[in-house]
Amino acid sequence: MTRRLALVGLGPGDPELVTVEAARVLNEVDYFLVADKTASHPGTADLIAMREAICERHVAGEWTLVPVPDPERDRDDPGDYAGAVRDWHEARAQAFERALLEHPGDAAILVWGDPALYDSAIRLADRIVERGVVDVTVEVIPGLSSVQLLAARHRLVLNVIGGPITITTGRRLVDDAVDHDNLVVMLDGALACRDLPDPAAWHIWWGANLGSPGEQLVAGRLPEVAGDIWERRSAVQADQGWVMDTYLLRRV
Amino acid sequence: MTRRLALVGLGPGDPELVTVEAARVLNEVDYFLVADKTASHPGTADLIAMREAICERHVAGEWTLVPVPDPERDRDDPGDYAGAVRDWHEARAQAFERALLEHPGDAAILVWGDPALYDSAIRLADRIVERGVVDVTVEVIPGLSSVQLLAARHRLVLNVIGGPITITTGRRLVDDAVDHDNLVVMLDGALACRDLPDPAAWHIWWGANLGSPGEQLVAGRLPEVAGDIWERRSAVQADQGWVMDTYLLRRV
Ligand SMILES: C[S@@+](CC[C@H](N)C(=O)[O-])C[C@H]1O[C@@H](n2cnc3c(N)ncnc32)[C@H](O)[C@@H]1O
Ligand SMILES: C[S@@+](CC[C@H](N)C(=O)[O-])C[C@H]1O[C@@H](n2cnc3c(N)ncnc32)[C@H](O)[C@@H]1O
Repeated sequence: MTRRLALVGLGPGDPELVTVEAARVLNEVDYFLVADKTASHPGTADLIAMREAICERHVAGEWTLVPVPDPERDRDDPGDYAGAVRDWHEARAQAFERALLEHPGDAAILVWGDPALYDSAIRLADRIVERGVVDVTVEVIPGLSSVQLLAARHRLVLNVIGGPITITTGRRLVDDAVDHDNLVVMLDGALACRDLPDPAAWHIWWGANLGSPGEQLVAGRLPEVAGDIWERRSAVQADQGWVMDTYLLRRV
Repeated sequence: MTRRLALVGLGPGDPELVTVEAARVLNEVDYFLVADKTASHPGTADLIAMREAICERHVAGEWTLVPVPDPERDRDDPGDYAGAVRDWHEARAQAFERALLEHPGDAAILVWGDPALYDSAIRLADRIVERGVVDVTVEVIPGLSSVQLLAARHRLVLNVIGGPITITTGRRLVDDAVDHDNLVVMLDGALACRDLPDPAAWHIWWGANLGSPGEQLVAGRLPEVAGDIWERRSAVQADQGWVMDTYLLRRV
């Protein structure tokens, strides 16, 4: 019999930011799968605990969370970033497939934020279906993304009137900033905006660990606030064991 | 005494796509305000009815919805688009201010989708605060956007691995497509992707009236599906009285 595999967007951390649909689906499936990076990043145990808090808040009765240890990503060949990511996806698909084989019934993969934004769960599920070893029907339950919480906290509209929004990564920021005036940056471990050639031209609205107890918010002219942001970023990493941050940059 | 003015993102239509936080805030305030375009666009009565269905589903007991008639937008001077939008925002702020003066207590403005994406509620609330006639504290409650529902329905990740996403409008699409490979288009009343000079270069994932009973989904190579999309767009407009559509374009 075909089993359900629901990719459930949980929002960026706060249990209140879960949708009613996501809460319903969590109550319908038999168990939850979650990518577990604690072997290589012990600080991420707190991220698993946050997901447990979401389940505890929204699931009636008992529930089962099955952590799936994340394979190590090969970072040796920086020239083939996309290839390395693909290999890692394959190893990850196999790990989730094993978990599905070991645990019968309907499953939900718990996704941080929205599955549509810089997340591998959809590709992972597509790969599981392609491999054909387990018989699952995939459904995607959208969730609030961290970018939306950033905007809400700063009371921001992400676009200027009638204008575009580009969402990019720390890795690409310096290049993408050349011909964009309004950028959201994600996946930036090193606060790449400090490398922009014209820092005084930018305003930044920054947030870290949004929706968690360690939440940090800073806004201002980039050169005036970059130091403060970097310090808070380091402090929250030390305090909570993890840091994830995102920001809007707009040319002034 | 300072009153609450909550800008509550309701998601793109389906009552299940409301967050737990949004549902809580709807229960805490005294009444709801909603922009009412039915004078100029009778078909949008259905959009008000959808918001009523959301309130009915999530608010315990009685609730009050106060429609605020939308001022007409001056479309005579297409050269000054931003200026016309600003004048319209001012008239709208005054209309909401009057509604707040007439109705005491805490209020929520019901926002379609996410307040952070091509929505005027945040600017409207900022303007009400600036004018200083009513004493309100503004809070923003993020909501799921139509773009996220589009992605979930098509089981899409909006970015290619490590790549950027540009969200733009129908008006800007032909220009923005020149140097972007991956675009989300909103606010497009005329399916501007049909004007792209190289249609065969694009794949499209399109959705209209997402989260409503008339929901439409089409995906494929742009030249192969553009006709079907336009027909469905017209049909859903005729059936439901309104049509709103959004799509992802990706170079193949
Ligand atoms: C792998 S991506 C996943 C994004 C997620 N799917 C979403 O919708 O937010 C991880 C990146 O998302 C951002 N992020 C995720 N959660 C965050 C949070 N709670 N606060 C700030 N940024 C966050 C950071 O930019 C981080 O590097
Ligand atoms: C004024 S903007 C508001 C966007 C909204 N704040 C959001 O987050 O989705 C209106 C545009 O959003 C998109 N849109 C809103 N609701 C939609 C729906 N249910 N289905 C498809 N597109 C929708 C369309 O591109 C429409 O032109």
